[in-house]
Amino acid sequence: MEIKKEGNFSEWYHEVLEEAEVVDARYNMKGALVWRPFGFQLRKLVFTHLGNLMEATGHQETLFPLMIPEGQLMKEADHLEGFSPEVYWVTKGGDTKLEVPLAIRPTSETAMYPMFALWIRSHADLPLKIFQTVNIFRYETKHTRPLIRDREVSTFKEAHCAHADQAQVDEEMALIRDAYNRFMDALCIPYIISRRVSWDKFPGANVTYSYDQVMPDNKTLQNATTHDLGQGFAKMYDVNYEDEGGKQQLCHMSSHGISSRILAGMIGAHGDDKGLVLPPLFAPVQIVVVPIVFKGNKEPEAKALELAGELSGEYRVECDCRDRSPGDKYYHWELRGVPIRLELGPRDMENNAVMLVRRDTGEKRSVPLDSLNQVLEETMLAIEHDMRKKAWARQDKAIVAAQSVDEVLDAEKKGFVAKVPLCCEDCGKALEDKLGSYEVRGFIVGEKPKGNCVECGKPAKELGLLSNAY
Amino acid sequence: MEIKKEGNFSEWYHEVLEEAEVVDARYNMKGALVWRPFGFQLRKLVFTHLGNLMEATGHQETLFPLMIPEGQLMKEADHLEGFSPEVYWVTKGGDTKLEVPLAIRPTSETAMYPMFALWIRSHADLPLKIFQTVNIFRYETKHTRPLIRDREVSTFKEAHCAHADQAQVDEEMALIRDAYNRFMDALCIPYIISRRVSWDKFPGANVTYSYDQVMPDNKTLQNATTHDLGQGFAKMYDVNYEDEGGKQQLCHMSSHGISSRILAGMIGAHGDDKGLVLPPLFAPVQIVVVPIVFKGNKEPEAKALELAGELSGEYRVECDCRDRSPGDKYYHWELRGVPIRLELGPRDMENNAVMLVRRDTGEKRSVPLDSLNQVLEETMLAIEHDMRKKAWARQDKAIVAAQSVDEVLDAEKKGFVAKVPLCCEDCGKALEDKLGSYEVRGFIVGEKPKGNCVECGKPAKELGLLSNAY
Repeated sequence: MEIKKEGNFSEWYHEVLEEAEVVDARYNMKGALVWRPFGFQLRKLVFTHLGNLMEATGHQETLFPLMIPEGQLMKEADHLEGFSPEVYWVTKGGDTKLEVPLAIRPTSETAMYPMFALWIRSHADLPLKIFQTVNIFRYETKHTRPLIRDREVSTFKEAHCAHADQAQVDEEMALIRDAYNRFMDALCIPYIISRRVSWDKFPGANVTYSYDQVMPDNKTLQNATTHDLGQGFAKMYDVNYEDEGGKQQLCHMSSHGISSRILAGMIGAHGDDKGLVLPPLFAPVQIVVVPIVFKGNKEPEAKALELAGELSGEYRVECDCRDRSPGDKYYHWELRGVPIRLELGPRDMENNAVMLVRRDTGEKRSVPLDSLNQVLEETMLAIEHDMRKKAWARQDKAIVAAQSVDEVLDAEKKGFVAKVPLCCEDCGKALEDKLGSYEVRGFIVGEKPKGNCVECGKPAKELGLLSNAY
Repeated sequence: MEIKKEGNFSEWYHEVLEEAEVVDARYNMKGALVWRPFGFQLRKLVFTHLGNLMEATGHQETLFPLMIPEGQLMKEADHLEGFSPEVYWVTKGGDTKLEVPLAIRPTSETAMYPMFALWIRSHADLPLKIFQTVNIFRYETKHTRPLIRDREVSTFKEAHCAHADQAQVDEEMALIRDAYNRFMDALCIPYIISRRVSWDKFPGANVTYSYDQVMPDNKTLQNATTHDLGQGFAKMYDVNYEDEGGKQQLCHMSSHGISSRILAGMIGAHGDDKGLVLPPLFAPVQIVVVPIVFKGNKEPEAKALELAGELSGEYRVECDCRDRSPGDKYYHWELRGVPIRLELGPRDMENNAVMLVRRDTGEKRSVPLDSLNQVLEETMLAIEHDMRKKAWARQDKAIVAAQSVDEVLDAEKKGFVAKVPLCCEDCGKALEDKLGSYEVRGFIVGEKPKGNCVECGKPAKELGLLSNAY
């Protein structure tokens, strides 16, 4: 790594993606990425974990087609208006002009709900809860940025549900919030949940909740969204059920999603000047064993291989016996964010010990081999705990509680994220007009406003989240 | 199931896909399928197994973009000619006409190899062996058929390799053949490996080997292909390396793939009039426990739940306590191909036993609970063994060793697949011209021809495979 993270986040971010071989942005299409083997493993570990959470909350995995016939996409007017400027269209097959142009999914509501209409008959079929992991596409006219703003979003884990009534929707929204909280916690990513303002919610949704993370440059990154879609989509796609009294009722729908952007959040939150720093749960390599070969004494190598073999039952382990200097090896694995390095040299062997080095803190200690298993277990937990704490502290420091328009203006000038008491969306809009590029991201959930609306002086009802956003 | 398999394979096949909830073909685009939760699990088990085989043979998982810019797809002339009639084109983003039309990948050679050119520097980087699991697209003008001929092939596990020389290619071809053989064996699918005739090989390949399976209607299904691509693609995409002497050399390429079609092969080979019959290794549910509740005695239910809980450490188990008749439950799980059913009624409980029923043979036996674990293990292996044996026997019976043109004509008339001694491709072509819809699929690998070429009477060098093909 040549670029320091502090003050050069964007350059650092591009360098670390390339050097650690996460993704390759040199593919010959703007906003499309190639996942390299190391990055692919990282992606797989992260999204497998999320898949397990989806299954644990009662969602079943499915897979729907990529293409959506024009008329089918066009049915929900708000949805269409929101997405149509960004939809890629397939218009030709071979040399033949297609009779019906096919949209490449920007998201899958309109692909799925006509099938829901076929599958759902009665209240006994509800709630119907499914998810899939697919690529989605947006013809972005804005500047693209790997994993943060891609034209091909390579990975989108989207859950879609049909419910009998609002109570079922509310239950689902609570389940998803719990699952997403746990997911962010596992990734050691801090978050602010907010209810998106009406002009910024998902096209076609009644309510959108969003998870934002403050990145190292103090811009907020939207990492997850969860939508109460009301009955609009159900109406357009005839998603009905027969209730217990034998009457036809319209379903309520909800949808929820997390994309590969979450990896940008994880990398941004934890990385340092040496490269990636990964939570143990998701590191493709959790432990690297490096033998220190001295004056041709190959004993440490044999011992290192043996140790790596023993640990590989419990952890994802590499033993680096390449013909390189220890320094080269440290650099290589630090860049890839391996949480724990075990060095094994002649002196360690004499002492029946290994030198354990933590990636997140650099802390070094000699650990007797007979207590290694326990120390590793404790250290993995400590790393996760400390990474989470550090990331939350960094985020908290970046957020200012502003109590007046002047304080909001000051926060924007100094590059802080602001929390601001407001009474309503109109006052949020009025405030936004006085600011530069800062916008009202939403109204924070789980935290009460203090004092009065900074805009109109009436008692505040909402706590607005204001920031520059990715 | 209402349709019998024998004599109505095509109708039976459509019915079983729908009734067992494998895929739903009612999506509003010809040749595009929805994977339902049960089918998705089946797909996942099958392709995870294949992925493990790919990793065990040294391939690393990656993911490449869906779209390929026009100029990049167009570089390899044979390849282009082979695929261009079937390529879907994205020509619009929102309302904007794209400057460069984007092809939706029909396969990924042309997406990958320009990246290979960036990644490969020296002989130490070779062989480079990767794979990915993606959807691919063909604008099929022929009749589509779920999983067999789709426009969106939802699942394609393709391996792509760059090699230093022909020896490395040959080594890879042997490794892949071994892996694919083991995969087919695990699926209990019979196969005939043949070298495709030159007019039927992969566009751009030097040599294509193919795995064909004889389906219940005696048409052959191509389940897998493996290609020695020579140096043509490497030349077009500048995939070079520096050899040990410091000289630039052109790489050799190979590619290998298996698609979701393999599930059609598996379903076709084993299913019966009751529905799916699945090899234990891939059955989403391996054991179903059905309590027989008699005169309101709920004890069997409690015992069944307990038993299912115990077995679930080792197997994928369901306990069916729904308020339905035993017959309904048997029908439900037989349809879904569950290899073993355990019935547990009052009499079984008295005897401290369960009734074990094999899905593949219908065989029933009472098994004492204290030997159940061992009997299950043996029975799973026996099912796999017997399914494989039966499928091979069925295929062998469908193939006739013809020794003259008349015998080939007779085989075609009677609907058998034919093995025919030939001396060369020209004679194969000449023979094909005398037949109806039968074609020379390729020259069988691993079996020597006996006698003379049926066409010209010279000593035969090849054993041609002739059939109608899917």
